[in-house]
Amino acid sequence: MLIIFGASGDLTARKLIPALFNLYKGGHLPEKFVVLGVSRSDLSDGEFRKKVVHESEYLKESVGKEANSFIETFANKLFYEDLGDDYDTNYHRLETRISDLNTKYGTDDNYIFYLSTPPSLYEVIAKNLSEEGLNNEEKGWKRLIVEKPFGYNLDSARKLNEGLHNYFQETQIYRIDHYLGKETVQNLLVTRFANSIFEPLWNRNYIHHVEITNAERVGVEKRGGYYDKSGALRDMFQNHLLQIVSLVVMEPPIGPGAEEIRNEKVKALKSLRKMTDEKTLFDNTIRAQYVSSVIDGEKVPGYREEEGVDPNSTTETYAAIKFFVDNWRWADVPFYVRTAKRMPTKVTEVVIHFKSPHHQIFKDSGMDSKDNKLIIRIQPDEGILIKFGVKVPGQGFKVERANLDFYYSSLVEQHVMEAYERLLLDAMQGDATLYARADEVEAAWEFVDPILEYWKNGKDVKTYGYSAGVWGPKNSDDLIDGNHMWRNPEEQLADDPGFCVIC
Amino acid sequence: MLIIFGASGDLTARKLIPALFNLYKGGHLPEKFVVLGVSRSDLSDGEFRKKVVHESEYLKESVGKEANSFIETFANKLFYEDLGDDYDTNYHRLETRISDLNTKYGTDDNYIFYLSTPPSLYEVIAKNLSEEGLNNEEKGWKRLIVEKPFGYNLDSARKLNEGLHNYFQETQIYRIDHYLGKETVQNLLVTRFANSIFEPLWNRNYIHHVEITNAERVGVEKRGGYYDKSGALRDMFQNHLLQIVSLVVMEPPIGPGAEEIRNEKVKALKSLRKMTDEKTLFDNTIRAQYVSSVIDGEKVPGYREEEGVDPNSTTETYAAIKFFVDNWRWADVPFYVRTAKRMPTKVTEVVIHFKSPHHQIFKDSGMDSKDNKLIIRIQPDEGILIKFGVKVPGQGFKVERANLDFYYSSLVEQHVMEAYERLLLDAMQGDATLYARADEVEAAWEFVDPILEYWKNGKDVKTYGYSAGVWGPKNSDDLIDGNHMWRNPEEQLADDPGFCVIC
Repeated sequence: MLIIFGASGDLTARKLIPALFNLYKGGHLPEKFVVLGVSRSDLSDGEFRKKVVHESEYLKESVGKEANSFIETFANKLFYEDLGDDYDTNYHRLETRISDLNTKYGTDDNYIFYLSTPPSLYEVIAKNLSEEGLNNEEKGWKRLIVEKPFGYNLDSARKLNEGLHNYFQETQIYRIDHYLGKETVQNLLVTRFANSIFEPLWNRNYIHHVEITNAERVGVEKRGGYYDKSGALRDMFQNHLLQIVSLVVMEPPIGPGAEEIRNEKVKALKSLRKMTDEKTLFDNTIRAQYVSSVIDGEKVPGYREEEGVDPNSTTETYAAIKFFVDNWRWADVPFYVRTAKRMPTKVTEVVIHFKSPHHQIFKDSGMDSKDNKLIIRIQPDEGILIKFGVKVPGQGFKVERANLDFYYSSLVEQHVMEAYERLLLDAMQGDATLYARADEVEAAWEFVDPILEYWKNGKDVKTYGYSAGVWGPKNSDDLIDGNHMWRNPEEQLADDPGFCVIC
Repeated sequence: MLIIFGASGDLTARKLIPALFNLYKGGHLPEKFVVLGVSRSDLSDGEFRKKVVHESEYLKESVGKEANSFIETFANKLFYEDLGDDYDTNYHRLETRISDLNTKYGTDDNYIFYLSTPPSLYEVIAKNLSEEGLNNEEKGWKRLIVEKPFGYNLDSARKLNEGLHNYFQETQIYRIDHYLGKETVQNLLVTRFANSIFEPLWNRNYIHHVEITNAERVGVEKRGGYYDKSGALRDMFQNHLLQIVSLVVMEPPIGPGAEEIRNEKVKALKSLRKMTDEKTLFDNTIRAQYVSSVIDGEKVPGYREEEGVDPNSTTETYAAIKFFVDNWRWADVPFYVRTAKRMPTKVTEVVIHFKSPHHQIFKDSGMDSKDNKLIIRIQPDEGILIKFGVKVPGQGFKVERANLDFYYSSLVEQHVMEAYERLLLDAMQGDATLYARADEVEAAWEFVDPILEYWKNGKDVKTYGYSAGVWGPKNSDDLIDGNHMWRNPEEQLADDPGFCVIC
């Protein structure tokens, strides 16, 4: 049984119910599977079903293709329980309802509690569940899925972990990072460890630097109020991007098990060199905000003009961080990671820049600045691209850049599970590989905390500006050593003003 | 000035004149460039021009696109000299003609003698040229281009080299192997040495075995008489395929110069382990002949039924050789090279089979027999293909094979020189990189000689049969170690009879 807290919220209708519907349709859910929605709204089972199934805009397309009877069968697996005014209340009535459903539908006392509520409620819910014995695995398993943000900084993340650990074992806790549900993110492990042509090159001997870009075309949209308290570093970097970093950096695990893989990821995150002095932080971090601009002939507002945003906000919508990894494999290899809103295009990609051939035989080939690259496109156009040199037809040995291309879409067609489908199914089956462990989350915060602290209280901290629709502030290329630059998958759309919002 | 011996022959009309026409059209030839055709036929300049230009079926297409005046300008650069009954005659009249043309057209005493005659005439022509001082480089350079076959075995190749060296310096001699004129063959060097992602993998630590296939769809066609005295080993393996082998095997040259590259190629050929005892030869070589079959509903004759072929011939139309390379880079890596006629398709390709990842993390992934491969397609569909593993979408870490593809045709369109264009231009410019040096040719014969000798006189030598249109005799896969097989780019077209012609 899946019990969703915050069932009247956006995520339930937008992601969880559609994911469950697709899993059910694909035959991945047992017939006796039921869902109990829980929140503070006063809804009947029927009203809940209407809201998240029959009248849901997120299910419209899927539902249209299915027979009415099939949809009814699915909808009848959904139930609703009103918790009253407060999540910190007596859960006895809830326990009775769960127990009744369990008996009626034979769900074997196996419960997943999905906390789709503000993080401030996690501990309270865990406590109340435990008071009703709903954390007790004597009969059937009990699992807790919690959503990001998992903490606001290292201190709050630790408190949150401690709070949950008072009532649930770490092995019962599933911290969701939907990036880990993406096939292309998981494929990082296969690319590295199931191919003998990549792993031998995956170290400081052959790699010059690593670049990771997460760009969004949109601005903060309607999330200004939330975003202004968070910022790019908390919203994307600490979780999704450091998860990708850990998969790129990690040593080969001794096996494919969840603990084996997560042990290596934690080790990887702990090996990121923390920046502790202001000079290092000044030199290796850039934050910026988009300013008003014209995109496709339409004026778009600057970040400070967005609804819910403080007009004097210094919250970053662009963050670029350079760092090193202090271990045997990566010594002296710089990593450049950036995330931003209002970029020219939407793209998430990892770029492995290989060193130049150490003996340049074809000296006059114009190959100097055309080193080999392995580009792993997380989204969109999921795939892998190798940029390498081929001979220009004709006399001599002139070399030009060519692409070796692989697109995921070229695989024999099969249903690629959406991230939430995959993650829900894994949690039901007790596979925590794609969920973040407590020490993993804390290790990520340990790296991010000094940057947050510096950006908040440091001297000389700047917030640069960049026109909405360009690849960040003018000086962002200065972050990268030598005459390298960020790889920008699309041309700049507008001129960059190149000024400082606060300098 | 280019002086072509054997100017009334097939090669001149089919390859040389079209190549010159295209070079001229592309602006690669100086205005004062002239061609003198020489042979034993009684032709006037006009008749020669008519034969190789105006009425040539090989120039029809190119000529049709050009203005008449342009064609005339080109044709007027062609001259002809009848040598009389015999190539071993007094060349004084020829010398006078060359001298007159040189004076009239200002060709600076720079002469290329292209010997498009039977190899038995090479030395005679060289001798007679030298008697007229036409080997003398005091004023202008003098170069000699000779065509394959360059020798019939090691002994005859050595004699041929010695004969030529009596009259010309090695630096004046250009031994043509048109495979080296192919862009994809030259690109082997660029692939290996201008890309930091390939060279680190290019050795025994990462490569399991190397496979090279040259397959022709056609049979011996009208060349039965010649072919029956030659066979696949002499016709393709000793020259073209060992040239490819040398480029795959060679160490990085210290520079891009002709001597630097050829020094490494010779070293590579000398490092091929010679097979000296009958057991080794029996175990590592396979010869076979195609037998009559039905292809696309049409009956095709067996080799022994072809025109000009001895009905009891043991000449091979299929040769497959396994060998090792005795040097630091390649110790214990088997090479498998085959060449054959009447295969299901026409293809020349190099396949680098990489070892399995040494630590198999995803044990149940079905990846065991799906190791990484780098496939270099020499022809057709020129390009590079990497076969690697990607994660099958869905739970767990199942791995399937996917392709990273590069096609030469995807490069910005530009005129790719045909092999003869490229090679003629190189010879004019004195670049011998793509020509075979004497020691290179002899090193190739040194490897091939014991096989030829064994196939001629050895005990227990078999000539297997294979149906025209299949991938060779049934036992050819036995040559390959372990449970590997030949990579056959197309499905078999017919059943293999699997019998022995002479067993």
